Amino acid sequence: MKQAFGEILKNTEGRKLYDITTMIIHWVEQQNITSGLLTLNILHTSASLLVNENYDSNVLVDLESFFCDLVKDGNELFIHTTEGPDDMPAHVRTALTQTNLSFPIKDKKIMLGEWQGIFIFEHRLHSFNRRVALHFIGE
Amino acid sequence: MKQAFGEILKNTEGRKLYDITTMIIHWVEQQNITSGLLTLNILHTSASLLVNENYDSNVLVDLESFFCDLVKDGNELFIHTTEGPDDMPAHVRTALTQTNLSFPIKDKKIMLGEWQGIFIFEHRLHSFNRRVALHFIGE
Amino acid sequence: MKQAFGEILKNTEGRKLYDITTMIIHWVEQQNITSGLLTLNILHTSASLLVNENYDSNVLVDLESFFCDLVKDGNELFIHTTEGPDDMPAHVRTALTQTNLSFPIKDKKIMLGEWQGIFIFEHRLHSFNRRVALHFIGE
Repeated sequence: MKQAFGEILKNTEGRKLYDITTMIIHWVEQQNITSGLLTLNILHTSASLLVNENYDSNVLVDLESFFCDLVKDGNELFIHTTEGPDDMPAHVRTALTQTNLSFPIKDKKIMLGEWQGIFIFEHRLHSFNRRVALHFIGE
Repeated sequence: MKQAFGEILKNTEGRKLYDITTMIIHWVEQQNITSGLLTLNILHTSASLLVNENYDSNVLVDLESFFCDLVKDGNELFIHTTEGPDDMPAHVRTALTQTNLSFPIKDKKIMLGEWQGIFIFEHRLHSFNRRVALHFIGE
Repeated sequence: MKQAFGEILKNTEGRKLYDITTMIIHWVEQQNITSGLLTLNILHTSASLLVNENYDSNVLVDLESFFCDLVKDGNELFIHTTEGPDDMPAHVRTALTQTNLSFPIKDKKIMLGEWQGIFIFEHRLHSFNRRVALHFIGE
């Protein structure tokens, strides 16, 4: 049994979902482990991780529309507004989605459903360099 | 240290929560591993996984009522309506809950709290055959 | 490859977020494993786990404000009111956040982002003794 640690970097350009499935697959291929458990952790509190549909890109547009409507920028409830009206909504949206995900890997293949992709959900309006920590344990 | 891969299938019949705890326990019992980490991944984007109360079934009714009210079928925000008014709400509800869960297993026993059950949350109105991938690593 | 099982206890005093990062770090330090995968499971259905900002405590205040507003106590939709108006909202808030989290540990260090802390999110108004099960696999 072995384990590997790594990190992927993704430059985001505003509030939306970014498909990182291919980046994850490439990292897995480079490791000296064939089958095991892969765990992803995003190292931020204003962007999150999500598994959702990778086929019709309108799903991604609608996900963003929904969260934008649910957690309104500049909501008067919020007192933490240090970095602007999209600051606190980003923390709430992170709380409502996920910061870590785990997947079985069998013979170098991530066990995802036919229409599933792995996404970074950027919740801020500006550009950021987002880091996702990777851990892979298996043999 | 060993690992096992598997899958459980669950036929759903409309939008609600389905307790799969017993199915998971049975699968764990059949594996040649006594203690370790169990990881579940649902292989769909319109049904999700959840740990919640397994005692009063009204909790399950109320969870469904809340999500139905929060993410309305036919919401005019949504442009992805390919499979009907419950299509995009299913993706949003999946984003708001979980697609993967991990549990410690000690001496073949899933470490759950007294009132915790493991559920598939079906978000579509029709019947579906849902697949949950299982991974168990331990000894 | 080795594994360790444990539990931490946290006494909560009402609805808010409780930082348990230090408790987790202490537990990891005491185990005979240097690097691996740490998994946390809260053993309750009315309190949950969350990774969010640990710097400005107003973020925690605002997270509570948002969830309080989104899932209203005494919402007439709810039929499960056995333990009072904050009972069913607690189950919904648990569904909207997480019950389990996994983190890579490298050389005894939890791989968290600079501003990330690990929190128990207590969703009930009263005091509770909350249990979080821990599992650590590695070498």
